[in-house]
Amino acid sequence: MDKFSKNQLERYPLYLKYFKELEESGIETISSPKIADRFGYSQEQVRKDLQAISDSPGKPKCGRSVQQLIVDLETFLGYRNVASAIVIGTGHLGEALLNFPAFSDMGLEIVAGMDSDPSKVGSTVGGKEIYDIKNLKDVVDSLSIQLAIITVPAEVAQRVVDIAIESGIRGIWNFAPVSLIVPPHIAIENVNLASSLAVLAHKLGKATTADID
Amino acid sequence: MDKFSKNQLERYPLYLKYFKELEESGIETISSPKIADRFGYSQEQVRKDLQAISDSPGKPKCGRSVQQLIVDLETFLGYRNVASAIVIGTGHLGEALLNFPAFSDMGLEIVAGMDSDPSKVGSTVGGKEIYDIKNLKDVVDSLSIQLAIITVPAEVAQRVVDIAIESGIRGIWNFAPVSLIVPPHIAIENVNLASSLAVLAHKLGKATTADID
Repeated sequence: MDKFSKNQLERYPLYLKYFKELEESGIETISSPKIADRFGYSQEQVRKDLQAISDSPGKPKCGRSVQQLIVDLETFLGYRNVASAIVIGTGHLGEALLNFPAFSDMGLEIVAGMDSDPSKVGSTVGGKEIYDIKNLKDVVDSLSIQLAIITVPAEVAQRVVDIAIESGIRGIWNFAPVSLIVPPHIAIENVNLASSLAVLAHKLGKATTADID
Repeated sequence: MDKFSKNQLERYPLYLKYFKELEESGIETISSPKIADRFGYSQEQVRKDLQAISDSPGKPKCGRSVQQLIVDLETFLGYRNVASAIVIGTGHLGEALLNFPAFSDMGLEIVAGMDSDPSKVGSTVGGKEIYDIKNLKDVVDSLSIQLAIITVPAEVAQRVVDIAIESGIRGIWNFAPVSLIVPPHIAIENVNLASSLAVLAHKLGKATTADID
């Protein structure tokens, strides 16, 4: 059973970023109340979050070692086990992801792109070669790819994902605005900008009518 | 009180996309069991979701009107009230968002970009002019901007958001990997790619070790 909630998993990269800033400023220890204060979380939540991923307890008067917290978080988040990935679909969003330098710090190495457009195949984006999507299986095999980042249009996403899984991909990071069906042994995570925008529009509508209620 | 859960709000754009596909195929009515089947949701969930946003009940033998569902969903999601937005920070991600044609169908009109880099100010991306971030207040006023899309680096995001709110922005769509502090009357929604990737890495790790458990 998975004891981590999605909200909790989403907090860890924020903690990590903060601890790295502290380390750069030469700060060696940090207490849970200070962390809680920085993020507006409760002290209990911060303590629970950090206990779940770190074996080394803080000392009552000094707090926790910043360096140890960074090691524990990076290990837990998988940033120390690099996964290699391809971007399938090199439209505007796919290009942006291929150009993103920060992913390598997060344990994700994007090694290539795939597209069906002959004018794109053979070119490079962000220094990575764009291959013909017809050769997906060969590329997955020869470059030992574990993750596929899906940035194709919604209407072809399921077909592309099916082929990627047949080719040996083990995880899907889906940016296409559609809910994909994958076998239970495949890890999938969706980034749905349309849904996120819908949530924002709803909040904005509420904020606008707040003084009427 | 808000009676919509975040998960529920995230399902509505998926329903809408499906209903539009049905409409294009000339299908006029749809039943809850068929919708449930399409997405792998329970019939109860689909019924509850649709009742919450539509006053027109389905007929027992025919199902619901696809056209009416589209109108109700678009109204609920705010796609019929266009909000104007600026993209602050025109790096790779900001550029991709400026180039994204699909947002206009979702009630979001991106009208301009902002940057501090003199080599970008005065140029256009996706047909939209890039203004100097120093002139944020003037741009918000003269173009009647409601939403700011934040694609600046994490370390300057809070400062940029503070200025945007002072300038009269009412909603924030935040792509910077940092938790921002905003007053309660400001709508905010975060798209945190680092967090999403952490969730995926965690699932991938579980999937890999599943046969050991």
